[in-house]
Amino acid sequence: MTDGFGLGNLPYGVFSIAGDAPRVGVRFGDEVLDLAATLGDPIFATPSLNPFMAQGRARWTEVRERITDILGNGHQATLHPLGAVRLHMPFEVADYVDFYASEEHATNLGRMFRPDSAPLLPNWKHLPVGYHGRSGTVVPSGTGIVRPTGQRKPPDQETPGFGPSRRLDVEVEVGFVVGAPSPLGEPVPTSAFADHVFGVCLVNDWSARDIQAWEYVPLGPFLGKSFATSISPWIVPLDALAGARVPTPAQDPQPLPYLREEEPWGLDLSLALRLNGHTVSRPPYAAMYWSPAQMLAHMTANGASLRTGDLYASGTVSGPSPDQRGSFIELAWGGQDPLKLPDGSTRTFLEDGDEVTISGSWGDVSLGEVTGRVLPPRR
Amino acid sequence: MTDGFGLGNLPYGVFSIAGDAPRVGVRFGDEVLDLAATLGDPIFATPSLNPFMAQGRARWTEVRERITDILGNGHQATLHPLGAVRLHMPFEVADYVDFYASEEHATNLGRMFRPDSAPLLPNWKHLPVGYHGRSGTVVPSGTGIVRPTGQRKPPDQETPGFGPSRRLDVEVEVGFVVGAPSPLGEPVPTSAFADHVFGVCLVNDWSARDIQAWEYVPLGPFLGKSFATSISPWIVPLDALAGARVPTPAQDPQPLPYLREEEPWGLDLSLALRLNGHTVSRPPYAAMYWSPAQMLAHMTANGASLRTGDLYASGTVSGPSPDQRGSFIELAWGGQDPLKLPDGSTRTFLEDGDEVTISGSWGDVSLGEVTGRVLPPRR
Repeated sequence: MTDGFGLGNLPYGVFSIAGDAPRVGVRFGDEVLDLAATLGDPIFATPSLNPFMAQGRARWTEVRERITDILGNGHQATLHPLGAVRLHMPFEVADYVDFYASEEHATNLGRMFRPDSAPLLPNWKHLPVGYHGRSGTVVPSGTGIVRPTGQRKPPDQETPGFGPSRRLDVEVEVGFVVGAPSPLGEPVPTSAFADHVFGVCLVNDWSARDIQAWEYVPLGPFLGKSFATSISPWIVPLDALAGARVPTPAQDPQPLPYLREEEPWGLDLSLALRLNGHTVSRPPYAAMYWSPAQMLAHMTANGASLRTGDLYASGTVSGPSPDQRGSFIELAWGGQDPLKLPDGSTRTFLEDGDEVTISGSWGDVSLGEVTGRVLPPRR
Repeated sequence: MTDGFGLGNLPYGVFSIAGDAPRVGVRFGDEVLDLAATLGDPIFATPSLNPFMAQGRARWTEVRERITDILGNGHQATLHPLGAVRLHMPFEVADYVDFYASEEHATNLGRMFRPDSAPLLPNWKHLPVGYHGRSGTVVPSGTGIVRPTGQRKPPDQETPGFGPSRRLDVEVEVGFVVGAPSPLGEPVPTSAFADHVFGVCLVNDWSARDIQAWEYVPLGPFLGKSFATSISPWIVPLDALAGARVPTPAQDPQPLPYLREEEPWGLDLSLALRLNGHTVSRPPYAAMYWSPAQMLAHMTANGASLRTGDLYASGTVSGPSPDQRGSFIELAWGGQDPLKLPDGSTRTFLEDGDEVTISGSWGDVSLGEVTGRVLPPRR
């Protein structure tokens, strides 16, 4: 009856009703627990999870225990029907980092972009490759995605043109939300992952492949990604995913000591990618080569500090089978092998009006959905 | 007597005295005008320029006129001696973007890293190449820079090692601070540059070249840069640099329409790089290929929004002459041609204890300085 949002989940978000002030809520089944009204703590009467997330692991545990007691034992609580609330950005994004942690995805892209050389670059199995994205354009699920315009140079043209992207794509990703900050100059070891990371969400890293291909050498993706990144509205606490923990696939060569884990932080999450209601892929998160604890240790190995609200995403999740690929460039192999849809149409990249939804779960714990519709380009 | 900080400059910063609350001030000669105390406007009683910067160009002009009147005509004002105040981060950085807009710098690095191919990549003269950096590690001038640790793989080794960077470098850059935001989906044309950009500062984009070289393919610089980026404490209003405007060098091929300027936004700033008090380079900002208005138009061409506090930097400023190069990797040509210092010592990359200072000015308008000392690595 609670459909993935039972007592084992209890994810946090920010909601409002009928235009009143946005505040923190917890999803329970088809209802939203109004935390400020129920617990009487003003930290939840703010339009962002950041102040609560900054309080740290001990406080997160304490609040989760109180909520579990209230909902589990039917104590007095203020609940709103899910259908009556509007959901907002759940937190203010500080820095946004995107990794590239799926061996299948990196291999597929290497095969397409560099057919004459080894698909994986020499550094890939030594460190979780990543880069910074634009935190100001991280948007909540449901935000319309205007097809971006930019420079792109098809291989058969001498000079670049300017216009709407013709190769608009998605990337199915999982995001990790930092709650507790860390000071400048102090690397965060893999063992401190759960002290800093508050929870998990779904991420759609919208990508304009033609803009990206022309711009990205040598400093990486910029405008091909920075127009929008969508996240799911409910941040699932790490505690809700304790049972999802699995070892990563075997890592060979053995990572350097700062990247080793004492306890596994791979996650056995099942993801799904739907296009206009039709499931086109089921990427398995357990296939990811690098764990989120390894990503965190790498991101801070040089002494970079963490801030409350930092978001880092896994990179596209792709599994070994063709129906487990987490982007259209992989599913339609760069446009060469169009995807057949149930209505008889085909797709290489996204068309205006297409609606894309990513969902995810571990057993009876749902990560919810992140969805977005492609809008025509601005003229 | 006002030494670059006269009525023609009047830059904004954030200061405190003897541990009281940080607030907005304006530098005038060797004094700091206490804006909240003088104007009675609580927007200046905050530890950040962001609220004021968000008010937009008309308000910036109005406040500048009032300050000019007060200081120029000797009206009642609260001034503190510069030596008595502590300077803080002048604004909260939203997104940080770093460009690569010097043709000399990009050519020098291309020659060193890709000696067998054309030094400039095919996209370089069609668009201002850039990428996102870590806004959480932008630090104020004077912050000590702990030598970062990380993975690096010297060419003569098979596998990477982990340890303190051996090729710690600087990049002399100019930064542009966004005041007025722009909505998602609406590109900002070059002609709107002065409506959005509040002012200018100096930037030292500290770079660990060995970490960067190993990590940066294919997604760009990450840990080689994210440990620290230093900025100068005084944000010089765009109005103070009106006379510094010059055309950029001739751009061939002609840029696409969205990158063309009706009026020039090149800036004739003179920069200087000092190592332990000795000037080692004088990079001329007027040599930059892309103007800051072009960078802004490019950064938003895909509809990416701007937020108050966005910082974008020019990339290393290098001129055509060897003594105009804005990084040690260029000045010492990748370590092959060590720099000779007055005390008889030589330098390729930075040593622990080295102090680096970047200064800049246009005529009698000073950009002040950004300084930082290299501290030993953490053990």
